[in-house]
Amino acid sequence: MQMDDMILVSIDDHMIEPPDMFENHVPEKWKDSVPRVVRNDAGVDEWHFQGEKTSTPFGMAATVGWPKSEWGFNPGSYSELRPGCFDVHERVKDMDANGILGSLNFPTMAGFNARTFTEAGDKEVALVSLRAYNDWAIDEWAGSYPDRFIPQGIIPMWDVDLAVEEVRRVGAKGCRSISFLETPHVQGFPSFLSGHWDPMLSAICDENMVLSLHIGAGFEVIRRPQEAPIDHLMVLACQISAITAQDLLFGPTLRQFPDLKVALSEGGIGWIPFYFDRIDRHFTNQEWLHGGEDFGGKLPSEVFREHILACFITDPSGLLLRDRIGIDLLAWECDYPHTDTTWPESPEFAWKELQDAGCTDEEIHKITWENACRFFSWDPFARTAREDATVGALRARATAAGVDVTRKPRAEWKQENEAAGIGVA
Amino acid sequence: MQMDDMILVSIDDHMIEPPDMFENHVPEKWKDSVPRVVRNDAGVDEWHFQGEKTSTPFGMAATVGWPKSEWGFNPGSYSELRPGCFDVHERVKDMDANGILGSLNFPTMAGFNARTFTEAGDKEVALVSLRAYNDWAIDEWAGSYPDRFIPQGIIPMWDVDLAVEEVRRVGAKGCRSISFLETPHVQGFPSFLSGHWDPMLSAICDENMVLSLHIGAGFEVIRRPQEAPIDHLMVLACQISAITAQDLLFGPTLRQFPDLKVALSEGGIGWIPFYFDRIDRHFTNQEWLHGGEDFGGKLPSEVFREHILACFITDPSGLLLRDRIGIDLLAWECDYPHTDTTWPESPEFAWKELQDAGCTDEEIHKITWENACRFFSWDPFARTAREDATVGALRARATAAGVDVTRKPRAEWKQENEAAGIGVA
Repeated sequence: MQMDDMILVSIDDHMIEPPDMFENHVPEKWKDSVPRVVRNDAGVDEWHFQGEKTSTPFGMAATVGWPKSEWGFNPGSYSELRPGCFDVHERVKDMDANGILGSLNFPTMAGFNARTFTEAGDKEVALVSLRAYNDWAIDEWAGSYPDRFIPQGIIPMWDVDLAVEEVRRVGAKGCRSISFLETPHVQGFPSFLSGHWDPMLSAICDENMVLSLHIGAGFEVIRRPQEAPIDHLMVLACQISAITAQDLLFGPTLRQFPDLKVALSEGGIGWIPFYFDRIDRHFTNQEWLHGGEDFGGKLPSEVFREHILACFITDPSGLLLRDRIGIDLLAWECDYPHTDTTWPESPEFAWKELQDAGCTDEEIHKITWENACRFFSWDPFARTAREDATVGALRARATAAGVDVTRKPRAEWKQENEAAGIGVA
Repeated sequence: MQMDDMILVSIDDHMIEPPDMFENHVPEKWKDSVPRVVRNDAGVDEWHFQGEKTSTPFGMAATVGWPKSEWGFNPGSYSELRPGCFDVHERVKDMDANGILGSLNFPTMAGFNARTFTEAGDKEVALVSLRAYNDWAIDEWAGSYPDRFIPQGIIPMWDVDLAVEEVRRVGAKGCRSISFLETPHVQGFPSFLSGHWDPMLSAICDENMVLSLHIGAGFEVIRRPQEAPIDHLMVLACQISAITAQDLLFGPTLRQFPDLKVALSEGGIGWIPFYFDRIDRHFTNQEWLHGGEDFGGKLPSEVFREHILACFITDPSGLLLRDRIGIDLLAWECDYPHTDTTWPESPEFAWKELQDAGCTDEEIHKITWENACRFFSWDPFARTAREDATVGALRARATAAGVDVTRKPRAEWKQENEAAGIGVA
C-alpha cells in the first residue's frame, strides 16, 4: 500500500453557510424573517437575525486559503474566503485536491447545537430557520453530492419534543448524524445525566443515527483564569472529551441506550489509554461504590468501546497506543477549513503519522475510512467505484480540473472573487 | 535486577495529623487557641478550631487498614485507623513492610494549601497554628526519621509577604517542598498567571525547594453536572493536571522562573504525551499567536520538561510512552493511606507494571527513586547504606519486627487500639 492507495473519509469538516442558504428552503411568508447576510460599513459580512448580529462566520473558522500570518479573529467578507468554504461545488474540488472521498460537515453560523436559533426570541421563526438549515445542509449541500457527504443535522434544543420530531423528520430523508453539545449543563441546559434528553437520544437510536459532539462547544466546562491567553481554549479543548465521556459513561446514558453511538468530533485519541487505565482501575479498586452489575458485568472501558467513535487530525502518541484504545474506535478527520486542518497535504500528513506509528494496511483502512463508514452507516462505494475513491484517483481528477491550492492573502482573494462575482450578495 | 532490588521513594503520601501534634510547637499562651481534637457524642473525633469543626480527617483519607467493603466517607475515630496513619514510628514500620525507603507527606486536617488556617477568622492564631504545623511536620514527623522523609511545609496563602517569610523560615531548616494549590483562581485566590504569587515562587526558587501541587485541591476547575456521581471527582482529578500545566506553561510562570521546579503530585503521566503532541503542534501551527522567542526558542514541551516532575501510582499506558514524556520526568508514589494506595503490595504492583512496560533496570531506578531524589535534592544514602535501602532489605526488617499488614474491620481496630491506649485523647 502506498499513500495514494489510501481512502480518506473525514468525520469533521465545516461549512460556512452561504448567504443564499435559505433561498430554496423557506416559504415566502418567512423569507424576510430568517437570518440574512448584511455587509456593514467596514466591509464585514454579518448575519442578522431577530435584531441580533449573529456570529461572524469568518476569522479562525475559515482560514484555509490564507497564509498563517493572516490568521486571527478578524471578521471579514465572504469574498475574502477560499470559495470551498461556502460553495459545495468548490468544496468537492478542494476535497479532490486533498484526496478526500467523504466528509461530515458541521455548521458555523447556526452553531454546533443550533445556538443561533436556540437563543432567538421568536421560536416560531427559529424553528422555521432551523428546519431550513437542515433542509439546506442535508438536501442541498450534502444532497448535491451524496457520494461525497455524510449528511448531518441539528435539533431545536429549546424543546425536547420538537427535537424528537426533527430527529425523525431528518432521519426520514437519510440524515446520518445529529450535532449536539458536549456538556449541555454548562450552557444552562439540563445535563446528559438529568434524563431530559432521553426522548431525543431514543429517537436518534431508532433512526440509527450518530450523536456527534464537537469540541469547543463545551469549553466553559473549564473555569480558566481570567488572564488565560487564547492558547488555553485551543490547547485544552481536547481535554474536555474525557469530561464528556465521563458524563456519558458514569451517568446512565450509555448504559441506558445500548444502541447509542457517540462521535467525539475532533476530540483526539491520545487521552483515551490514560482514561481507560484510570476508569478501570477506579472501578475495580473502588468496588464499594459499584455493584458488579452497574456496568452489566463489563469494565467501564468496555462500555465506552461499545458506543464511542474517537477522532483525530494529528495524534502520534495516541496512534502508538491504538491497541490499548481499540483499533475499531479510531477515525480520522481533516477539519477543513479551520486553522487545525492539514489541507491540502492531509494525505502526506496522515500517511507519515500512520507509518511512523507502524500501522498495518488493514489498520490504516480502519482508521481512515472503514470505522467511520460503519459507525455512520454510510457506504462509500454506493456511488463510487473503489478504484475511483483513492487519494491518487481523486487527486488526479483535481489535477485534470486545474484546482489551485495556493494560499493567498485575504485582499487578493477579495479582489479575485469579487471580480468573478463570488462571495458578493 | 529483581523486585527486591528496587529502591522506592514515594513523593506522595499523607499524614493524618495526630491529636497531640501542637503540643511541642505552640507557646503556652496559644495552647487553647490552636486546633484540638474533640470526640463528639457519636464517637467521631473532630478537629475544632475557632468555633468551626474542621475537616474530619478520616473516611476516604485513611482507609489503608480496612477491607474495601468498609471504605466510604463516614467519619470515625483515630482509634479505628491503622496507627501508621498518624504515628510516625508506626508509619516507618509500614514503609518497611512495603519496601519504601523515602516518603514525602501531605497534610490532611491542615489542607494541601493550609486551607484550615487560611479560612480561619483570627489570622494571628492561624499563623501560629500554621507555623506549628510546619514545625511538627518538618521537625517532629520528618525530623524523627530524616533518613525516611522528605520534609514538606505549607504557607499562609492569605498574605504573600507572610508566605515568603514562611518559605524562608522552613527553608532554613531543610524543608524541601511547599504544598500549594493546583488552580488557586478556582478557590478565589489570584491565579498563577496574575503575578500575585511571584514573590513566593521566587523565594521557593531561592531555597531550591519544589512547588508540589497535589490533585484534588483544584477539582472545582471542572463545572460538573449537579447529578455527577462521586466517580467524576475521583476519575477526573488527574485530568486537571493538564489544566494546571497549561496555566503554568502558557502563562508566564515557568518562563519567568527558570529555576522553578513543580511536582504534579498524583497527577499521573499518561496524559503527557497527548498534551505534548497538542501543545507543540499548536505552537508551531498557530505561529501567528507567538513570536519565535516566546518560549526562548524552545518548544512548549521542552519548557515543560525543564520544570515538571510527573508522578503516578499506576499508569501502564503512560509507561509505554515514557520516551515521549522523558524518562527524567517520571516519579512514583504510594499514596498511603488513601484508597488509591497499593500498600502493602506496592513493590509487586510497581514491579509488574514496570516489567510489563519493558523498562530497563536503569529506567526503573530513575522512576522509582533517582528522579525524585534529584528533583527534591534529597540524598537517600546520606544516612542509609545503599544495600539497606532496597525493598528486600526493608521488608526483611519489617518481618523481623513482626509488622502485621492484615486488613481489619474498623470495629476491630477500635477495640484493639483503645485497649492499647492508641488513638485515644
